[in-house]
Amino acid sequence: MEPIMTNRIVVAKTHIDGAPKVTDFEVKSQVLVQSAQPAGSVVVRNLYVSIDPYQLNRLKSDCSRQRYSKLTPAIAPGEEIDCYGVGKVVASGDPEYQEGDLVAGLLTWGEYCVLKPAGSMFRKLDTMGFPLSNHVGALAISGLAAYAGLFDVGKAKKGEKVFVSAASGSVGHMVGQFAKLHGCYVVGSAGSKAKVELLKEKLGFDDAFNYKDATDLKATLKKYFPDGIDVYFDNVGGAMLEAAIDNMNTFGRVAVCGVISQYTGAGRKAAPNLVDVVYERLAIKGFVAADFMAVFPEFISKACEHISSGKMVSMEDISIGLDSIPSAFVDLFSGGNVGKKIVQIAQE
Amino acid sequence: MEPIMTNRIVVAKTHIDGAPKVTDFEVKSQVLVQSAQPAGSVVVRNLYVSIDPYQLNRLKSDCSRQRYSKLTPAIAPGEEIDCYGVGKVVASGDPEYQEGDLVAGLLTWGEYCVLKPAGSMFRKLDTMGFPLSNHVGALAISGLAAYAGLFDVGKAKKGEKVFVSAASGSVGHMVGQFAKLHGCYVVGSAGSKAKVELLKEKLGFDDAFNYKDATDLKATLKKYFPDGIDVYFDNVGGAMLEAAIDNMNTFGRVAVCGVISQYTGAGRKAAPNLVDVVYERLAIKGFVAADFMAVFPEFISKACEHISSGKMVSMEDISIGLDSIPSAFVDLFSGGNVGKKIVQIAQE
Repeated sequence: MEPIMTNRIVVAKTHIDGAPKVTDFEVKSQVLVQSAQPAGSVVVRNLYVSIDPYQLNRLKSDCSRQRYSKLTPAIAPGEEIDCYGVGKVVASGDPEYQEGDLVAGLLTWGEYCVLKPAGSMFRKLDTMGFPLSNHVGALAISGLAAYAGLFDVGKAKKGEKVFVSAASGSVGHMVGQFAKLHGCYVVGSAGSKAKVELLKEKLGFDDAFNYKDATDLKATLKKYFPDGIDVYFDNVGGAMLEAAIDNMNTFGRVAVCGVISQYTGAGRKAAPNLVDVVYERLAIKGFVAADFMAVFPEFISKACEHISSGKMVSMEDISIGLDSIPSAFVDLFSGGNVGKKIVQIAQE
Repeated sequence: MEPIMTNRIVVAKTHIDGAPKVTDFEVKSQVLVQSAQPAGSVVVRNLYVSIDPYQLNRLKSDCSRQRYSKLTPAIAPGEEIDCYGVGKVVASGDPEYQEGDLVAGLLTWGEYCVLKPAGSMFRKLDTMGFPLSNHVGALAISGLAAYAGLFDVGKAKKGEKVFVSAASGSVGHMVGQFAKLHGCYVVGSAGSKAKVELLKEKLGFDDAFNYKDATDLKATLKKYFPDGIDVYFDNVGGAMLEAAIDNMNTFGRVAVCGVISQYTGAGRKAAPNLVDVVYERLAIKGFVAADFMAVFPEFISKACEHISSGKMVSMEDISIGLDSIPSAFVDLFSGGNVGKKIVQIAQE
């Protein structure tokens, strides 16, 4: 690392309370002086960073007032935005890390970040021969969310019927593939004809439908699940959750991974029929992948095996360059991405 | 039993789709001819019968179309209405039962019922020295719902904070007492000042409030649970569930036992904040007591011990006579009952 260098980071210009716009963000330059870094810290050149819908919740004006602000800390306008990613150490004040080491963990929406390795999931990365981008998507938090949500939260068993919404998204496309490989019947919903084709043809879903074409979601689910749904992997909330509850089998499980319909404040909140919840003895459980780090080794071992053998596809949607981050993020909320949304900030 | 006798039963005159009215019911006479009863059947004089809100769901016009119509079979207008109760055998075609035996199980809203003992939870009743009415309430399905819902579904642990709605009702007043005896902090909501006093003074709740006085349920719960709710035992659904979700602690559990706000179609459905459900990793689980018959012996042993020692009160609200059934039932939906609603049809 040069003793003095310029870093460019993407920041929010204001709090964002509705759907995000590209103009809500700007690129800010900052000067990094190596000698000014805190003792024991590491300077990382960010290579691939994760673009996730939940970040929007951190940018809202009322975020710091949320009870779970420790889990998803507020990001103030102008402040560095941390995110999961893969990078390379360019300078190290920690004897555990050397210049040139590949690392994974909480980096930033920036060209470089400076961090203390302890905590924040930061670790040296063994690529195991997989592309670096896989270690931001299928082999990272999105994949873990799919695996733990499906098996630990949803308790999906062989032969059961699984429905997944936002099925071509970062988590959804992994859920469907894990479920298929486990011997489940899987149907996914997505927001375009192309995505639906992809789910059926490339990812091996038993079936898929475009929710935008469905005038009656309850009837649509009834058509795809004449014998009911055992596990619903929910990424969206809203009307889709209501329709799924309406079609759940007795003792069915809903694993709620995300609620994208609520994040922008655009959709109405789901009001599932609780009489169904009681009489069908349904369980609706929210979860976050970070609670399942104990499952990480098991998940990684299975995912690597499936991807290596060609039974599983890590679907990625990669934009190039730091300046593409705002549009990559904004696109998430209009269904622009197919698979895991990643920005490649620099080449290895 | 006389060879020919008259039975009087309460039936619905029509399907009931809104709040029930006394005039929705009528008393019908039928002639019971002993020699005409099916072989192996038993004739029971009903003594105490249970009056439960869920029966309304069985009387609705669309009930037979529900997926769970097997669990809660539709009751057509004019048809006998089965219900849990305690009675005495007056004639028996089953060698296991003798005239004069006390029995418990699914009887009817009638002076007499004729049934085949196999199934329908029908059994000889050992009163163990407790009043017969206890065997319709605290020592029967309502008590089991409280016990299993609190411990098996809600997983309440010593020191945790428990909120129960409809806390002076048949199930609620047992929930609160079981929770207190388990070392939990317990607050209940009810619909009158008198009920609130009863919860605090007679049943040992740590605190209680009249939900009708609360203009802001979220703020009210925040006041009673400054450190959050660990277990919410839900009997009502609607706005109270939303408010509870808003106040749940991380990894909190909601045990949904009933949804009285939805039964009459009067209240709006709960639209809990799913972002809270995800980030706080909440579990919302519906259940029915009948799934927990394996827990029945453990529950009965604890409940008998607590009631005998005076640590637990079986609160009962008993109306007298078959003709009081319609008003007893209707009153459930306007909060007329305090404790378990029972009708004494005849004296032992």
